[in-house]
Amino acid sequence: MADAALKLTEEDTIRALIDEWVRAAKTADLDAVAACYTPDIRAFDAISKLEFKGLEAYRAHWKMCMEMMPGSDMVMDLHDLEIEQNGELAFVHYLSLCGGTDEKGETQTGWMRATVCCRKTADGWKISHEHYSSPFDPETMQLINTR
Amino acid sequence: MADAALKLTEEDTIRALIDEWVRAAKTADLDAVAACYTPDIRAFDAISKLEFKGLEAYRAHWKMCMEMMPGSDMVMDLHDLEIEQNGELAFVHYLSLCGGTDEKGETQTGWMRATVCCRKTADGWKISHEHYSSPFDPETMQLINTR
Repeated sequence: MADAALKLTEEDTIRALIDEWVRAAKTADLDAVAACYTPDIRAFDAISKLEFKGLEAYRAHWKMCMEMMPGSDMVMDLHDLEIEQNGELAFVHYLSLCGGTDEKGETQTGWMRATVCCRKTADGWKISHEHYSSPFDPETMQLINTR
Repeated sequence: MADAALKLTEEDTIRALIDEWVRAAKTADLDAVAACYTPDIRAFDAISKLEFKGLEAYRAHWKMCMEMMPGSDMVMDLHDLEIEQNGELAFVHYLSLCGGTDEKGETQTGWMRATVCCRKTADGWKISHEHYSSPFDPETMQLINTR
């Protein structure tokens, strides 16, 4: 029982980290987004580059992303989130309905997938690796954004 | 020292799992690929579908992939592989130079990224979550396969 209670608490803390990351991303709070990551974060983001190594590089990418969608009503709804945790590591995976408002004022969304790998540090649980993407159709080389 | 030696051994075992997965994939050994996964594998593959849940569904996808590239000289070179392990979980991330031989007999390759999340089971380390992808250019919506 003690173990089960402890594990629940770790998972709650990890879920809180993910919720804070979503809040920070949706409100374009760059400092708060950056605070979710370890200094040695290695990120495979969905757009722009194969990888981002280290917090400075990834923060610069986030800044660019936030400037690309200024003041938009960002949609980022997490679905089917699963957490696997043991000791000082955890990994989280979920489907993400992402989108925003286009120039006509219409909301455009598409499905993506996310893997978030977390490490328990002296400063609490942090994200040390992140992978966001869309799959593609190998026949047409077009992105797939449907579920 | 004991801890360091133990950790090295765990990382060696995880690296051997990854090497076996690459060998199995390159030789189209479907049973051996499937043996690398847990029954509850949740996979976000680069192509075809947003997610694959469970070994049966993912094995069927692998079978389709192997039939799509019959007898080809598959290229799958792993670069910059990093392993983070603690307790009974580990996550691995690397860049993958992937490709094959086209109808003119020329080798075509492109860079992808991979995240492989592993669980220590009674049957040794297995992959319980996998994420493979290419990023895309948000301006053109074209895939990026350069490093």
